[in-house]
Amino acid sequence: MKVGILGGGQLARMIALAGYPLGLKFIVLDPDANAGAAGLSEHLHGAYDDPELLAQLAAKADVVTYEFENVPAHVAEFLTSHTLVYPPAKALAVAQDRLLEKDFFNRIGIGTAPYAAVDNPRDLRTALASIGYPAILKSRRMGYDGKGQMVLKSEADLEPAWHAMQDAPSIVEGFVPFQREVSIIAARRPSGDIAFYPLSENQHSGGILRVARACRDDAEQAMAEDYVRRLLEELDYVGVIALELFDVNGRLLANEFAPRVHNSGHWSIEGSETSQFENHLRAILDLPLGSTQTRGNAAMVNFIGGPPDTQELLNFPHAHLHLYDKAPRKGRKVAHATVRSDDAEVFAGTLEQLSALAQRIDNS
Amino acid sequence: MKVGILGGGQLARMIALAGYPLGLKFIVLDPDANAGAAGLSEHLHGAYDDPELLAQLAAKADVVTYEFENVPAHVAEFLTSHTLVYPPAKALAVAQDRLLEKDFFNRIGIGTAPYAAVDNPRDLRTALASIGYPAILKSRRMGYDGKGQMVLKSEADLEPAWHAMQDAPSIVEGFVPFQREVSIIAARRPSGDIAFYPLSENQHSGGILRVARACRDDAEQAMAEDYVRRLLEELDYVGVIALELFDVNGRLLANEFAPRVHNSGHWSIEGSETSQFENHLRAILDLPLGSTQTRGNAAMVNFIGGPPDTQELLNFPHAHLHLYDKAPRKGRKVAHATVRSDDAEVFAGTLEQLSALAQRIDNS
Repeated sequence: MKVGILGGGQLARMIALAGYPLGLKFIVLDPDANAGAAGLSEHLHGAYDDPELLAQLAAKADVVTYEFENVPAHVAEFLTSHTLVYPPAKALAVAQDRLLEKDFFNRIGIGTAPYAAVDNPRDLRTALASIGYPAILKSRRMGYDGKGQMVLKSEADLEPAWHAMQDAPSIVEGFVPFQREVSIIAARRPSGDIAFYPLSENQHSGGILRVARACRDDAEQAMAEDYVRRLLEELDYVGVIALELFDVNGRLLANEFAPRVHNSGHWSIEGSETSQFENHLRAILDLPLGSTQTRGNAAMVNFIGGPPDTQELLNFPHAHLHLYDKAPRKGRKVAHATVRSDDAEVFAGTLEQLSALAQRIDNS
Repeated sequence: MKVGILGGGQLARMIALAGYPLGLKFIVLDPDANAGAAGLSEHLHGAYDDPELLAQLAAKADVVTYEFENVPAHVAEFLTSHTLVYPPAKALAVAQDRLLEKDFFNRIGIGTAPYAAVDNPRDLRTALASIGYPAILKSRRMGYDGKGQMVLKSEADLEPAWHAMQDAPSIVEGFVPFQREVSIIAARRPSGDIAFYPLSENQHSGGILRVARACRDDAEQAMAEDYVRRLLEELDYVGVIALELFDVNGRLLANEFAPRVHNSGHWSIEGSETSQFENHLRAILDLPLGSTQTRGNAAMVNFIGGPPDTQELLNFPHAHLHLYDKAPRKGRKVAHATVRSDDAEVFAGTLEQLSALAQRIDNS
């Protein structure tokens, strides 16, 4: 069996690493000659919407998946008409547009922060009158890692913020006074079987995920599972999905979902009986889903801007290094490390030290 | 960093899978165009002793290692004079020759079964007079998975057995009434640091390993560590080594050692904090060794002759499949599955079922 992946970055790389033991082969389409998954797969080297390369991808792969949600609609349509594509195109369409996404959440009974569509300065003023400050203006499309987002603290921010959006269709969202940010990752097979991972508690800074930590026996687990189940079933979803949520006094509000394996689930490689990457493959190949049981305490630390020194990192006996083979660049995720231990104290101590190390690298 | 591997089979495949997260690249030399590691590495396609390809391997790899011990001496010499080669050539020389190996064990205080060199029918008769029946005649070189071995039950077996050896220099070994076969895997860095894995209890049948199971808190752990430490230090060894032992009433007798990652350590992928494959790489790259702590109960079942049905295998929630991408053939190892669980009963039940499944496939 050959799995095609649109995109050959770290997510494709980790999917491929999880798939070799299952006897799978991989083909990726990526414009970067040095894509991180290139050494692990056949590499179609060119633009994501190159018709010739897409035809090759569809012809060679038994099933196609992707590592980012901003797949152009016509690309998804083309692939879907030529081969099996999971997750389904509908999930892409919804996830790509923050307005559709929020409307969708609300329609299926998943709460969100207050929000309004903004297509012009007048919309913005009207929305703020009811939502109030502080609020956040986001482009409806193509945002990730905090890009395309402007914080609005007072009326004085409106004009510059709208200007920065360059007339892009946007939404404005009210701030919610959340205690923590969590995400839930789940995998669904075509048959409808679903496997849920334990909640991940996530720390962001500068709009980028820094630390994600598996929550065992979390009080909000059942509510999160209910929400993500609705999402999966309503979208007739196949594959791994990640739903990001705000925890506001024990009430969960949806922020966004990603129709793919997700950074906040990277601890599952060592921290779960079956990783999100393997379960994504099992799901899209309609194989039995693997146990999502946690193995001790687990968390992940992202390395932004540059990788840690390998020698230094591996000196932590409970750390696991994951380099993405990406050139260092300010603000770029180039590696992560998992901490896993049955011993809660060892775990907490190692996590603290790795977080500090990641912070130092990002600040340097 | 690029790691060269002589041989591109399942061991090279699992080494490469363990090495990508450390940011490593791989180049293998293997005559088989469909070698299991080929998709995961640059592949030099030709004979193991092809001077042109060996020169390329030495030039491109920062360090060269191997997945089998029968590397011809002149190949090891050539590589050693052109690049870093771990484990050291001396370990190869000893491991390749059962007589040298047994002599070596005894010289450093590691007990063995009684044995004697056999170069002709007269040697054989003389040896049996003191060792007694039953005994086993083995060629000194090139034996694996029970090949090149003849059981001697009475004098009548001597002539046909010697005939079958085709005059190859051999040794004869007395049978030891062992309670169990175990192995210990350890990794050593150039600095001398050693990491020991827990003993593995191994079940063989037809000379082929069938099941290997991690032993936590085993009574013989300390003795096994002492033995393997002597071996590592005496050989100034770097990398992972496996020492196979007979447990005779709590006394350990060495059978043989393998200067490489070993089938009886495959459960370490899921069952240990750091797998034998990753620790082999850490050792040969002089990086800190990872924790060898076990994660719950773990065992491995080999699939011989053909792979299990993926759907059937993955239905066991605590099973992990490892396909080697090798064509099925009678007596050939083509896959293994790990069972891992914190729950001893779940573990034992799953292991029993997987062993039965493997048996059915081998008998079919």
